[in-house]
Amino acid sequence: MRAVDIIIKKRDGKVLTEQEINFFIENYTTDEIPDYQASAWAMAVLLNGMTAEETTYLTLAMANSGDRLDLSGVVDIAVDKHSSGGVGDKTSIAVVPMVRACGLPVGKMSGRGLGFSGGTLDKLEAIPGFRTDLSKDEFLSQLGSLGMVLTGQSMDLAPADGKLYGLRDVTGTVQSIPLIASSIMSKKIAAGAQAIVLDVKVGNGAFMENLDQARELANLMVSIGELSGRDVAALLSDMNQPLGVAVGNAIETKEAIQTLRGEGPADFEEHCLEIASHMLLLGKRAETKAEARRLAEDAISSGSGLEYLKKLVQAQDGDVRVIDHPEMLPEAPVKTVIEAQESGTIAEVHARTVGETAVVLGAGRMKKGDSIDPAVGISVMVKVGDAVEIGQPLFVIHARSDDAVEEAKQQLKNAVKIVKEEVAPLPLFYGLVD
Amino acid sequence: MRAVDIIIKKRDGKVLTEQEINFFIENYTTDEIPDYQASAWAMAVLLNGMTAEETTYLTLAMANSGDRLDLSGVVDIAVDKHSSGGVGDKTSIAVVPMVRACGLPVGKMSGRGLGFSGGTLDKLEAIPGFRTDLSKDEFLSQLGSLGMVLTGQSMDLAPADGKLYGLRDVTGTVQSIPLIASSIMSKKIAAGAQAIVLDVKVGNGAFMENLDQARELANLMVSIGELSGRDVAALLSDMNQPLGVAVGNAIETKEAIQTLRGEGPADFEEHCLEIASHMLLLGKRAETKAEARRLAEDAISSGSGLEYLKKLVQAQDGDVRVIDHPEMLPEAPVKTVIEAQESGTIAEVHARTVGETAVVLGAGRMKKGDSIDPAVGISVMVKVGDAVEIGQPLFVIHARSDDAVEEAKQQLKNAVKIVKEEVAPLPLFYGLVD
Repeated sequence: MRAVDIIIKKRDGKVLTEQEINFFIENYTTDEIPDYQASAWAMAVLLNGMTAEETTYLTLAMANSGDRLDLSGVVDIAVDKHSSGGVGDKTSIAVVPMVRACGLPVGKMSGRGLGFSGGTLDKLEAIPGFRTDLSKDEFLSQLGSLGMVLTGQSMDLAPADGKLYGLRDVTGTVQSIPLIASSIMSKKIAAGAQAIVLDVKVGNGAFMENLDQARELANLMVSIGELSGRDVAALLSDMNQPLGVAVGNAIETKEAIQTLRGEGPADFEEHCLEIASHMLLLGKRAETKAEARRLAEDAISSGSGLEYLKKLVQAQDGDVRVIDHPEMLPEAPVKTVIEAQESGTIAEVHARTVGETAVVLGAGRMKKGDSIDPAVGISVMVKVGDAVEIGQPLFVIHARSDDAVEEAKQQLKNAVKIVKEEVAPLPLFYGLVD
Repeated sequence: MRAVDIIIKKRDGKVLTEQEINFFIENYTTDEIPDYQASAWAMAVLLNGMTAEETTYLTLAMANSGDRLDLSGVVDIAVDKHSSGGVGDKTSIAVVPMVRACGLPVGKMSGRGLGFSGGTLDKLEAIPGFRTDLSKDEFLSQLGSLGMVLTGQSMDLAPADGKLYGLRDVTGTVQSIPLIASSIMSKKIAAGAQAIVLDVKVGNGAFMENLDQARELANLMVSIGELSGRDVAALLSDMNQPLGVAVGNAIETKEAIQTLRGEGPADFEEHCLEIASHMLLLGKRAETKAEARRLAEDAISSGSGLEYLKKLVQAQDGDVRVIDHPEMLPEAPVKTVIEAQESGTIAEVHARTVGETAVVLGAGRMKKGDSIDPAVGISVMVKVGDAVEIGQPLFVIHARSDDAVEEAKQQLKNAVKIVKEEVAPLPLFYGLVD
């Protein structure tokens, strides 16, 4: 078997076999196949597509390219969740303790933010002392004892995916539905997931801007699940405006705490309840969606979710006092309210612009490895469809300096559209694929 | 400007600007753009195509990537010819002296054989002492004094093309009409050509097996000529059966000598007369095709072409006695006639199979750098459409050993098809694009 023949086969629009895909990924992982062949192949895949079967073979080949976590001795069923990333998405911080409170153990590995899109690890690290670098042994031990982990990826999970993703980033081959789907699914499968709730974000603040493409991605990931024996449910959720109020690290963690206290923004609470319900269903903690939903609601109203977040922070060496005193989280020295200059209805709160402004303030990274400021960010005080009066707050800017405020102000001017006519609120979800 | 954005633009089927193409090729030549970006770009070009303008920019960018030969002080008009390669194609050895005899100077750089396709340099080197490694100064000096050179490429002409071609070979991106056209044209333009006769071979023994594709390639190269101010004529010629009788190095050189003596195979002589006529037309040595044709015919009948071949061999240190005594060329120790096993009409003499058999005998290379045996080869005694009787010779195998004969025999069995019904002869040419 030769790499060039596999490239030519995909170039000519033919369907690759499991053997061919395994050969390509195994040899790419060990550098036997060079980057210049992998990038030509990736471009052929992007332009000619792959079937669900091919994508499943690719997913499994990448999942098998390095370490694999086996959770079968630790939990009865390994349920994971994954968000495709967005602005204001602090869901995991609230949802992992919620479902744990309902009796479903979750060992989850999260990532860092890049560009306008935030990352759970950065948000958690706003809690003084909180460790996100648990070893494999620490991960398994805490999952066994506490039934809950939320940390970074310390192992060499799906290294072929990491290598290929880095290559795709510089060769114009990121935007391929099969390559995106296999990238997401390979990491989850390597991390031991038997069931996965996928939160596929759609909108200007997401990786997928277009609903058709997002639905295609969701369908393909659900098919990969079926073909590989994993139970997968994918929610299509809105990311045209930020999720919740807070966009920034400490303020998002604070918002997750408030939500577990029953004092969170309505849209974010609803989002968490839906995600948690589907996790409980896949994890067989409920027979019906309605039952799962009641369990999730109870985890908030009873305070059990909050208690479990406290236990999580404690287990991972964080300062547990912040749960009852969120004001102890890092706070920005300058806070400025941006007011509406006209009355009317909010027609747009552009998620991407808000996310990019947060990066400018220091809350996010332009490139991997950049340091971030946990204290800064933006509170988004309005949602699409809201009526506003002149002088009503649109944003609160949390900044390090007055100069930063000025820069953010300029950018945020373009983020909001106020119109005279009525505007329907944006839906939270566009559908479920399972 | 970033390489990845140029890749993405071509991936999305958009048209690249001259600046973008120059940026890409300049930076690829200096290794600023790595192979893995160039191969992704080449795949996008292969699958999405390029306009004639884009292809011209690419051609000129590659022509400008290294040394360029300026022949304007040496000849009044620099006419070149190029064959896309085939089996039995010894045309340059006959045609360069022919047109020189008609007053048209030609300084031509040729290549070596690879796979089933032969190369002019290998054939010339069958002449004892003949040098194909002239320096740039020797090239210019001989072109000035003798008006005729036939040598290898000693300078660093179009290095971007060499680099890109090597990459395309291992990334499944060879079969792209714009990439093939720009590769051919960039070398000719870098070598100083102002007018070019292209011999685009079509058939199973050529790079292009299909007439539509060959015509597309010819049209594109003529367009590149127009857009870059070069006069280009492209002949589409048959390569479904070998050209002439001889396939092998010494025997092909011998056939070229015989042809200049007026004793060559009819098809090969006709082929040479057509190519020479078009060169004389582009070189303004004739007003009409008919006049050019008469000049070329005279070069054979008067013996002036043969005299110029003698001068060429002498100028390049070859043993000039071989011209009058071709039997002095290397001869194979074993010669075996393959006879027809049945009577009928020749329906096929498969050029590629004959070429591959010649490689097995030692006349060609499996890979670059392999050594070759000048003496061995195959004489092809029949043409499509010929009537044959049982026992009539189909091939003469010129081999180094009896074992080699046996192997060649086995292979050649599949090269000839004899049928009972009549079969029309194959045309020599399928058309002219100019």
